[in-house]
Amino acid sequence: MDLLLLSNSVLPGTNYLEYALPVLKAQLRTRRKVIFIPFAGVTQSWDAYTDKVRLALAELSLQITGIHQMDDARAAIDSADIVMVGGGNTFSLLKHCRDYGLIDPIREAVKKGALYVGWSAGANLACPTIRTTNDMPIIDPEGLDALNLVPLQINPHFTHALPTGHQGETREQRIRELLVLEPQLEVIGLPEGNWISVQNGKARLGGSKPAWLFKANEPAIELAADHHFY
Amino acid sequence: MDLLLLSNSVLPGTNYLEYALPVLKAQLRTRRKVIFIPFAGVTQSWDAYTDKVRLALAELSLQITGIHQMDDARAAIDSADIVMVGGGNTFSLLKHCRDYGLIDPIREAVKKGALYVGWSAGANLACPTIRTTNDMPIIDPEGLDALNLVPLQINPHFTHALPTGHQGETREQRIRELLVLEPQLEVIGLPEGNWISVQNGKARLGGSKPAWLFKANEPAIELAADHHFY
Repeated sequence: MDLLLLSNSVLPGTNYLEYALPVLKAQLRTRRKVIFIPFAGVTQSWDAYTDKVRLALAELSLQITGIHQMDDARAAIDSADIVMVGGGNTFSLLKHCRDYGLIDPIREAVKKGALYVGWSAGANLACPTIRTTNDMPIIDPEGLDALNLVPLQINPHFTHALPTGHQGETREQRIRELLVLEPQLEVIGLPEGNWISVQNGKARLGGSKPAWLFKANEPAIELAADHHFY
Repeated sequence: MDLLLLSNSVLPGTNYLEYALPVLKAQLRTRRKVIFIPFAGVTQSWDAYTDKVRLALAELSLQITGIHQMDDARAAIDSADIVMVGGGNTFSLLKHCRDYGLIDPIREAVKKGALYVGWSAGANLACPTIRTTNDMPIIDPEGLDALNLVPLQINPHFTHALPTGHQGETREQRIRELLVLEPQLEVIGLPEGNWISVQNGKARLGGSKPAWLFKANEPAIELAADHHFY
């Protein structure tokens, strides 16, 4: 399988998805036909979101169509070279993927060779569950199980920082709560600007910031650049 | 109905629940028999959590028992003067309240005159739903509907701040996503150290920091100290 799972969409001082361009380009091969899934977008229309991504990726000469614009969404996934899933609200994303009946078709398409590209909520969706999302549960996704395309549980936008004086839980504390309930899990704190690339059965960490691996009853493990997960 | 809904448990430089002591004392009247619900606690045992609260509130001479220590949890709620619900993970809290069959009994007890005291996740639980929680969905609560004791949807630990450079959504952006889906809702951003007190059918804002009211398609409204919600 072939996946590119990005922590987020934009870095300070750069354009939307700009940091992802060379990474995505390196993993494209001859694939150009993209189905974009904008369901995580809530405060922008799905049309506008699709246009934004089309503009951001213009230099890659992709043919990008929004899934919501297709008469037969499942067939569209089946014939896509690339399934691209944008960030936003993970609960909204999963709920609409379920309602459109896309969970199995996406999984099958990626297993057959389509490239899966997701950022933020889109990276969460590729995991076994969305239980490591940072988003607000604005809609009931009717179960937290997701695509399960990788045996990794990613926390996107990972940071150790809190606003000064804030007493709410740190991100690590939230992840540790999950590890109490599911001590067999390994959660990857993926900082903004980093990604995980899966190619030829191997998963590799990309990006320049330290990423973190959280396991139950162990201190956080800092992952070296180019760390191989499997 | 009589409720005290606190944004959080602790302020910088003070002890656990210290800031809540005078507020809680003012609303106690003759009530002393407390059932404490520690289900939001995940990284501490429910026994330890109950002990911590007992110690923090010692000067109020309350009789505090953890709901998990009772043979008949529903009967315990029914005979409590005060139902107290601690913070932690809101998904865990709601899930266990459902599993213990406590949603209706708590609602009935409060309608009959028991004082409901909740902080953070415990304040969220009193709302119509938990859709304004900040917590990670570490467990499926099997529906987001909650106690619906107040016609307010509280976001506890509210802040406009993000860590420097962080590209993830602001709290207001997350709340605005919910308002796109549910434009009839009014969401209250309750900063740490503030509370909402409901007495004699009236709900009043307490605390010294500005709180915020978010409505669909309107700029955020700053609420004055002592604002009356209804």
